[in-house]
Amino acid sequence: MSKRKSNQGSPAKGTKTAKLENDSKSDCQPCNHFVDPMLTDQYQISMAYAYFVTGRHEESSVFDLFFRTPPFKGEFTIFAGLEEVLRYVASFKFTEENVAYLKKTYPTWKPGFWDYMAKLDTSQVRVYAVDEGSIVVPRMPLIRVEGPLGVCQLLETTMLVLVNYASLISTNAARHRLAAGPDKTLLEFGLRRAQGPDGAISASRYSYLGGFDGTSNVKAGQMFGIAVKGTHAHSFVVSFTGLSELANTTITDSDNKEQEFVAKVLKYRKELFPETNDGELTAFIAYAQAYPSGFLALIDTYDTLASGVWNFLFVALALQDIGFKAIGIRLDSGDLAYLSKECRKKFTEIGAKFGFDYFAKFNIVASNDLSENVLWSLKEQGHEIDSFGIGTNLVTCKAQPALGCVYKLVEINDKPRIKISQEAVKVTIPGKKEGYRLYNTKGEPILDLMVNTNSKAPSPGERILCRHPFDASKRAFATPSRVESLHKLFWDHGKLCFAFPSLEDLRNRVKHQLSIFREDHLRRMNPTPYKLSLSNDLYKYMHELWLSESPIQEIQ
Amino acid sequence: MSKRKSNQGSPAKGTKTAKLENDSKSDCQPCNHFVDPMLTDQYQISMAYAYFVTGRHEESSVFDLFFRTPPFKGEFTIFAGLEEVLRYVASFKFTEENVAYLKKTYPTWKPGFWDYMAKLDTSQVRVYAVDEGSIVVPRMPLIRVEGPLGVCQLLETTMLVLVNYASLISTNAARHRLAAGPDKTLLEFGLRRAQGPDGAISASRYSYLGGFDGTSNVKAGQMFGIAVKGTHAHSFVVSFTGLSELANTTITDSDNKEQEFVAKVLKYRKELFPETNDGELTAFIAYAQAYPSGFLALIDTYDTLASGVWNFLFVALALQDIGFKAIGIRLDSGDLAYLSKECRKKFTEIGAKFGFDYFAKFNIVASNDLSENVLWSLKEQGHEIDSFGIGTNLVTCKAQPALGCVYKLVEINDKPRIKISQEAVKVTIPGKKEGYRLYNTKGEPILDLMVNTNSKAPSPGERILCRHPFDASKRAFATPSRVESLHKLFWDHGKLCFAFPSLEDLRNRVKHQLSIFREDHLRRMNPTPYKLSLSNDLYKYMHELWLSESPIQEIQ
Repeated sequence: MSKRKSNQGSPAKGTKTAKLENDSKSDCQPCNHFVDPMLTDQYQISMAYAYFVTGRHEESSVFDLFFRTPPFKGEFTIFAGLEEVLRYVASFKFTEENVAYLKKTYPTWKPGFWDYMAKLDTSQVRVYAVDEGSIVVPRMPLIRVEGPLGVCQLLETTMLVLVNYASLISTNAARHRLAAGPDKTLLEFGLRRAQGPDGAISASRYSYLGGFDGTSNVKAGQMFGIAVKGTHAHSFVVSFTGLSELANTTITDSDNKEQEFVAKVLKYRKELFPETNDGELTAFIAYAQAYPSGFLALIDTYDTLASGVWNFLFVALALQDIGFKAIGIRLDSGDLAYLSKECRKKFTEIGAKFGFDYFAKFNIVASNDLSENVLWSLKEQGHEIDSFGIGTNLVTCKAQPALGCVYKLVEINDKPRIKISQEAVKVTIPGKKEGYRLYNTKGEPILDLMVNTNSKAPSPGERILCRHPFDASKRAFATPSRVESLHKLFWDHGKLCFAFPSLEDLRNRVKHQLSIFREDHLRRMNPTPYKLSLSNDLYKYMHELWLSESPIQEIQ
Repeated sequence: MSKRKSNQGSPAKGTKTAKLENDSKSDCQPCNHFVDPMLTDQYQISMAYAYFVTGRHEESSVFDLFFRTPPFKGEFTIFAGLEEVLRYVASFKFTEENVAYLKKTYPTWKPGFWDYMAKLDTSQVRVYAVDEGSIVVPRMPLIRVEGPLGVCQLLETTMLVLVNYASLISTNAARHRLAAGPDKTLLEFGLRRAQGPDGAISASRYSYLGGFDGTSNVKAGQMFGIAVKGTHAHSFVVSFTGLSELANTTITDSDNKEQEFVAKVLKYRKELFPETNDGELTAFIAYAQAYPSGFLALIDTYDTLASGVWNFLFVALALQDIGFKAIGIRLDSGDLAYLSKECRKKFTEIGAKFGFDYFAKFNIVASNDLSENVLWSLKEQGHEIDSFGIGTNLVTCKAQPALGCVYKLVEINDKPRIKISQEAVKVTIPGKKEGYRLYNTKGEPILDLMVNTNSKAPSPGERILCRHPFDASKRAFATPSRVESLHKLFWDHGKLCFAFPSLEDLRNRVKHQLSIFREDHLRRMNPTPYKLSLSNDLYKYMHELWLSESPIQEIQ
C-alpha cells in the first residue's frame, strides 16, 4: 500500500538510513536517549524474575498492544510511534551498568538471573504491526509481539510510552487539520508549553505527521527536516522606544545599494495616520532592515487597529518603494476573527489606494490559545486568517492528554489467554489474531475484521458474518469489494524487515487515509462509529474461554 | 533558608557534583540531551539576528520569567526546574554543526552573525531566581535574567519549557499529597501514559519533589535515587492456568532449606474457600516463590472478593508457616473504597482465626485512574487503602496540562519597558524588581511584595503600604514580623553561585513550605488568594509608564 524509501527524517543524525534487512543495532538507536530497557516499570523486571525463577522465561508468548477508546470523543485514531518502537526493539540491551544497578537494588535475587539479563536481546522476537500513519480502530492490535515470555514482558512499558503520546498528538493534529480545512497553513508553536523537552520534540514530529505544515521548534526542524517558521515576539517590539535607536536609516536593495528607508516610512505615516506607537514603528523598521524580503510583523503589542496594522502598512509601503514585498502580520490577542477581517479590509483599502493588488492578500497569521474548537468557531465567524500557530492545546492534547494503549498477553505456549475483569470493557480478545480492513465498491473502508491467525483470510466478494466483540445480538453480513491485510511483519528475529518510511511518506499516508474514510466517521460532533468486528469463529472461541475462566459465584 | 549540599541526585551520571563557584561547563550538562540552544523557537533566532543587524545585541537587558495564574484552580504553585535551567545556562553554546545548519537555513543573513553565534555564551549573563521547591505567586519573577539583549533573548523558550512542566507536575503532586494526607504512601505509576519518554522521567523526578514517595519508573530510580516500587501485572496472572505449570512445589526458607509450599497453600484453600481461580492461585504461588519476603499480589484479575483475596490469603498463610510475612495486595479495578474495606475485613477475620495480628495490617495498594478528586472522594468513603499508585492524571496533569509561564523584557539600557495589551491581564510589570515575603508573628506568610531594585528593602516592624498591581482602590498596610528576600543570584558571569541541592532537600523544602502557609491558601475548594502586592513606588512607576505607552484612540 505505501511506498517505502530511505529514512530522510532519521532522528539520530539526519544522515543514517535504516537499511532493508541488514540494519545493525548500532545504526538503529531511538531518537531519545532515555529510551532503553531501563525506561520501564519496576514490575516488568519483577515479573521477568518470577518467570525466570519458575523456569517460564523462555516459553513462547504473544502480546497485543491496542487501545479501547478513540481520543477526543472521535471515531478515528492515527497510529504513530512505530519507528521509535522498532528502534527500541532493535537496540534493546541491558548495559553492564544497568545490570549492576539492578543487582544492587535486588541483592537477594538468584545470580543466574543477572547472567540472563546481561545476555538478553530481541533476536528471538517477532514484531507485527499496522503501518505507521494508519487510521486504527479500538481493540485491533496495533502491534503484536511474539517471542519468549521474559523478553516480551520487558518490552511492554517502553512500547506503550512510545505509542501512546505519538498516536495521541498525531490524531490531535489531524483533527486540527480537519477543523482548519485543507488550504490553511498550520504551524505547531507549542515548544514552551510542552510536557518537557521531548514532549516538545515529539509534538513537532507527530503534528507534522498528522497534517501540520511547520513548527517553530528549531531542533525539530534540524532533526526531522520539518519547515521551521516564526516571526518575532512582543519583547522585540517593546525593546524599542523610538527612531533614535536605529543603527541606520537605510535598507540594502536587491542591487546591493543602500536606499533611504526611514524617511519613506515616515512619509507614509504622515500621509495616512500619524498617531501610532513610535517604539512599535521603530521595531518594525528594524525588523524589515534585517529581513527586507521576509517582513512579517506582530501587530498587537500596543493596539492592533490603532497602531499595529498602520505601522505594518507604512513599512510595507516603503518596502514596496524599494522593491520588496512584505509578507504579512501576526495577531496574538483579542478577537481574532474580527481583527483579521478589519486588517483584511485595511489591506484591501490601502492596496487599492496605492495600486498594489498583493496587499489584499497579505498573510494573516493568528495565534493565542487556539484549539480545534476555536478553529471551528473562527470558521463560523468567517475569519480572514491564512495561517494558524497552535501551541498548548495541540501539544499537551488538553482535550484529552493521554491515550490509553495497553499491552496484554493473549497466548502462551500456543494456548490462548484471556484477561477477565469485573469491568467487561477490560476483557481482552484472546489468541493470535490477524486484522483485515474491508472496503466497499466506492473504495471506502466499511469495517475492520479480526480473525484467528489460523483461520482463512476473508476474500473480496465473500459474504462474511461479522460479530460485535461483546454483544451477541449485534451481527451483520458484509461482502467486501476489497480486503486489506492490516498486520505486517516489521521485526523478525533480529532483523528489520522494512526500511523506515520518511516522515513525509507517513504524513502523506495520513492525508490519504483521511481522504478515503467516510466523512461521517471523521466529523467532529457525534461521528458514526467505525466498527471492529470479530469473525464468527473468533467470537465463539473468545466467549467459550471467557466462561471457562470466570468463577461462578455463590450468592448467599 | 535552605541547607545546600552536594547533588546526590545528579541527573547526568549520578556521580557528578556541581561544585560551589567552580563548576566547569562540561560538568554541568542538562539531564535531557535535547536541551541545548537549538531547542528554541525560530523567532528567537530571527530576533537575535535583527538585534545583531541593528547593532543592539550587546545592549544590557533584563527579562522576567513568571506566570499569571496558579494551576488547578488553586492558590499555590511550586516552582521547579531551576537546576535544569542552570545546567542549560551553564552549557549554552551553539556547536559548529548547529551554526552550519542555521547558516544553510538562512543563506542571505550577514556572515558576521554566524561568527557572533559561534562565539556566544552566557559569560555575560546573570541569573537570579527564587529557590527551587518554593511556593510562588503569580507575577512574581521566578527567574530574572540580566545581560546582553541577544543572548538573553535566545534563552527564553528553553527556560520556559524547563520550568513550565516541572512546576506544573510538582504542584500537581503536592495537591495529591494534600488530598491523600501525610501518612499515605504515594507512588507515581505514570510512565506508560506520559507525554513521551522525558515527560515520564520529569514526572517521576518532580512528583517526588512535590511529595510522592516513589515511582514505578526504573530509569528515574537509577537517575535520581528515587525509591522504585511495583508488584506484578494482570499478564503475569493470566500467563498461568494451573498448578502443573510450576517448576517446583517448594520455597527456600531463611535457613536455606527447601520447604514444601504448594501442599500448605492447598490445605488452606480446602479449609477456607476452595472455589478460587486455579491460574490465579498458581501465579500467586509462583510470585511468592520468587519473592517469599516481599509477596504483594494483584488480586482483581478474575474476581477480587470471590477469588483474588482468598488466593492471596492461602499463600500468605502458607508463607507464614514457613516463616515469611506477606506484604499485601493491589486493587486495580472496581469500587476501590468498598473493595478495600471488604479486604480489610477479610484480613482481620482470617488473622484473628489463625492468630496473626499483622494480617489486619496488610498493605492495600490501589491504582486505576486515580486523581486528586478521587483521593478526596475515597477519603469521604472511609477507604482502607494504604498506598496509592497514580498514573495518567498525575503525570499528564489532566486537570490542567500546561502552566503558562512567560518571559518578558522589563528593562533595556537601564530604562524600564512595559508590554501593553488589549487584555489588561497581559500587561507586564516594568523594570528590575526584587521580591520579598512578609511573615506575621505566627511565622505564616502574609503576602509577597515586589519593589524596585533600587528602592529600600522592606524591614520587619515597618508599616508598608501594599498595592494591588492593577486596581488602584485595593490597598493595605502590612507590618511584617519577618521579611524574607526571595531572589538569589544563581549564575554570575559564567559561574554557578550555589551547588545544586539534592532532590531530597528540594522535597523537604516543599514539605516545609506547605507546612507554614495558612491552610485556607492551600485548600481544594475556593482557596483564599495569597496576594502579590507592589510597593507604592513601584505601583506609581508602572502606571505612569503604562499611560505614556498607550495610544489615545480617536472615537469617530
